[in-house]
Amino acid sequence: MRISELARVTGVPVPTVKYYLREGLLPQGTVTSRTQADYGDEHVRRLRLLRVLREVGDVPVGRLRDLVVAVEAEGLNTHDVLAAAAVALAPTPPPPGPARDLARTLAEDLVTQAGWDHVAPDSPDRENLAAQLEAVIALGTHDDKDPGLLLRYVEAVDSLAKWEIADLDDTAGPESVMQQMVVGQVVFGEVLATLRRLAEEHYSAQRFRPATSARRAR
Amino acid sequence: MRISELARVTGVPVPTVKYYLREGLLPQGTVTSRTQADYGDEHVRRLRLLRVLREVGDVPVGRLRDLVVAVEAEGLNTHDVLAAAAVALAPTPPPPGPARDLARTLAEDLVTQAGWDHVAPDSPDRENLAAQLEAVIALGTHDDKDPGLLLRYVEAVDSLAKWEIADLDDTAGPESVMQQMVVGQVVFGEVLATLRRLAEEHYSAQRFRPATSARRAR
Repeated sequence: MRISELARVTGVPVPTVKYYLREGLLPQGTVTSRTQADYGDEHVRRLRLLRVLREVGDVPVGRLRDLVVAVEAEGLNTHDVLAAAAVALAPTPPPPGPARDLARTLAEDLVTQAGWDHVAPDSPDRENLAAQLEAVIALGTHDDKDPGLLLRYVEAVDSLAKWEIADLDDTAGPESVMQQMVVGQVVFGEVLATLRRLAEEHYSAQRFRPATSARRAR
Repeated sequence: MRISELARVTGVPVPTVKYYLREGLLPQGTVTSRTQADYGDEHVRRLRLLRVLREVGDVPVGRLRDLVVAVEAEGLNTHDVLAAAAVALAPTPPPPGPARDLARTLAEDLVTQAGWDHVAPDSPDRENLAAQLEAVIALGTHDDKDPGLLLRYVEAVDSLAKWEIADLDDTAGPESVMQQMVVGQVVFGEVLATLRRLAEEHYSAQRFRPATSARRAR
């Protein structure tokens, strides 16, 4: 197909497609004349991935190269492809405050207790978890000394994440795997957060709303 | 205590304290002289709540009034206080696309299947869920026809949310309840998202990384 058709099929505007070609983020098409080239399924797949990374994953243009390198590399296994996307999607932890060291110990203990021993020693989410636990300590609204508190959150995600990874279809190539992962992490992450709020609303009404007002419109 | 002490104890700057007094978001102190007033524990509690709403909940200044009204109102039950905070914290759903109606049906079915029958008919998170499911349909990376897929996410949060609401301490007054709720929703929401990513990293390495590279540093 021509570049205009490629743009139409993928929803990526022609100037953006040309930018990706110039930057080497999209492989060149097969040259058919002095001014035209032919594009195929591999270009559609790559553009769909780039679009999901930009629009769903909010990945900056400058970080797309690392991800394209990961999907193009020979000999990288599926975990390496996923890890590259995970690093690009992970938030940057805020600068440490006075309780960060204590929070780091809590975070390490939690990952150990969870049994997640395949997490990389330099995974940015170890520090993100420490930063969040530091916020819990500083705010003082919850009992950070209660080990059962945090294990509830571990339990909530452990079997979900296990199932999510088992459900990933790795037969359609690295672009597809990365795309499933970005959507899974971002969009299903939002679904999970919304469902948690809905469940909290339900159980809050059940616990705290007097029976007489239960049928009253809010 | 004087206003300077109040500012020191709560970490809210004096000009902000004066602004809250002028706006009626903080009750006036007891006047002790022509230029001085005395402030007590109720002022500390209110300022701590306002700080958490602003800094943790990212609630705009213009929306603080509704929340102060909810904590001050006589005869509002704890659920109403929590619901006021939930509305202020819920994101605004994006404008509907072509699949929103289908997504709304899916979202309603899911809430029904979850058994969350105390969720208010006008809860903004019903539409947020529909908007997110619309994104899942549009992206096409996951099988939105598989009812088991979404139930996994319901299961992950159902017992967690039930426990979170049971764990709320409602004996320390409405300010404390609202503060626990904001921290629980925002900070523990981030903890939950980070733990999910860590668990995904662990199970991805377990499933996809060849045994020979498992001991190799990344």
